[in-house]
Amino acid sequence: MTDRLSILHLADASAAAPAPAPEDVARYALGLGDDALVLAQRLGEWISCAPELEEDVALGNIALDLLGHARALLTYAGSAWGETEDDLAYFRDEPQFRSRWLFELPNGAAGGLDFAFTVLRQLVASLYFGALYRRLASSQDAMLAAIATKAVKEVAYHAEHATLWTLRLGLGTDESHGRMTRALWDLWPFVGELFDSDPAVVALAENGRAGVAVPPEELRDEVLTAVQATLADAGLPVPDAPFAAGGGRAGRHSESFGRLIGEMQVLARAHPGATW
Amino acid sequence: MTDRLSILHLADASAAAPAPAPEDVARYALGLGDDALVLAQRLGEWISCAPELEEDVALGNIALDLLGHARALLTYAGSAWGETEDDLAYFRDEPQFRSRWLFELPNGAAGGLDFAFTVLRQLVASLYFGALYRRLASSQDAMLAAIATKAVKEVAYHAEHATLWTLRLGLGTDESHGRMTRALWDLWPFVGELFDSDPAVVALAENGRAGVAVPPEELRDEVLTAVQATLADAGLPVPDAPFAAGGGRAGRHSESFGRLIGEMQVLARAHPGATW
Repeated sequence: MTDRLSILHLADASAAAPAPAPEDVARYALGLGDDALVLAQRLGEWISCAPELEEDVALGNIALDLLGHARALLTYAGSAWGETEDDLAYFRDEPQFRSRWLFELPNGAAGGLDFAFTVLRQLVASLYFGALYRRLASSQDAMLAAIATKAVKEVAYHAEHATLWTLRLGLGTDESHGRMTRALWDLWPFVGELFDSDPAVVALAENGRAGVAVPPEELRDEVLTAVQATLADAGLPVPDAPFAAGGGRAGRHSESFGRLIGEMQVLARAHPGATW
Repeated sequence: MTDRLSILHLADASAAAPAPAPEDVARYALGLGDDALVLAQRLGEWISCAPELEEDVALGNIALDLLGHARALLTYAGSAWGETEDDLAYFRDEPQFRSRWLFELPNGAAGGLDFAFTVLRQLVASLYFGALYRRLASSQDAMLAAIATKAVKEVAYHAEHATLWTLRLGLGTDESHGRMTRALWDLWPFVGELFDSDPAVVALAENGRAGVAVPPEELRDEVLTAVQATLADAGLPVPDAPFAAGGGRAGRHSESFGRLIGEMQVLARAHPGATW
């Protein structure tokens, strides 16, 4: 139970509203929040289906951490438009989500639960979040800096967890090595989009607020170097596959995204406000 | 992240094995562990489907707490037979599970996700666990006493959470009140089994170890009084419905149980040891 306070104040939705985000900052926070929300959603599909009880708990905790980051970022983003985190999570349609494709991909290329794919995505995602939040902790926007400062510690553990599993499976049996190799081929094309230009970052720079955001292009070398170092330690060759176009920050999504948000939104839309 | 240590020691499955449980104590721990495991499984189905992001986090945390109780109890039970928590969770068949029916029921009578039903089950379950663990904290078995002492604090928060929702929905709109009333009718027949005699408790008494376990019959008045008090506060009449027979402690289960453990076990059985 990491969130006791919010549980004890269910009825008190009005507590401690932060100062509203400037709109250009909100658009940037929205993209970051969507990335965390969508990955939390995908990880949540593992709950009680992991291959070990210990891993059930670990993936569940990681998903809840990501959901925490998403809630903070979406609450801040929504403050610009008078919307709550729930408005943004449950009442936007597909083209309004700004998440990168890496986070929305199903947990296995075949659509089922593939642990190898999930481990490798967590490796890339956690190293990316780590590099991002470490820099964002110095953002000129105080709220983004505070959110990033808290998140950076959590994603460091996520990266450690994913690294241990990558080594364990990459250096394990022929079967586990083969599964990791195949999963890496499925995943790799979607890594590049993480470092594509973000229109919200460009807009902030044009408004004279370059110090608020972290340009994703600047993360590319650090993240790819860290990912490739772990893959090399695990005996996994980096695929010779081109990066796909993606387009999540422009509201374009992959085929499975509609089902993902459909499942997430169905109950809230059926009972808005959850008070029936 | 409440379970960092275990995450950081993925490769070290042999750490700190407790003294083996006597077999009659293990049979008792198995039933309690199955109750927590199966309810965690049902709650896990809510992850990323709750009507609010805050509730997603709350239900996720509660499920992880229950999974923690299950792991401790099953690890201890398994020590009597040289089996791990994963052996017991993933490699037993339906008649070997000892969980009571209340915990295995789907999250809504129609099979879908019914938040009213889930809230009411959590109310009954949390008050039952609270009464049980408060007494078990004085068990003559030191391991059971330690597990219960830790769990009692957590289930107190779960009960508080379920109580707040019961009041919010019972006293909410006509629609929410009606849904709670119907869900309570679906749930009520399965409340009585919680207080039915447990063969494992009888066996402990016959072996001169009555001080190890808590006879479920002794919890009946305390739990029903607490449940009925909250229902009265929420304006929800106690159904005039008889208690069903159940039979979970004897390995008899309801129709939906096979699907529940099937989903939980499929991956571990496909890849035993998760090392492929």
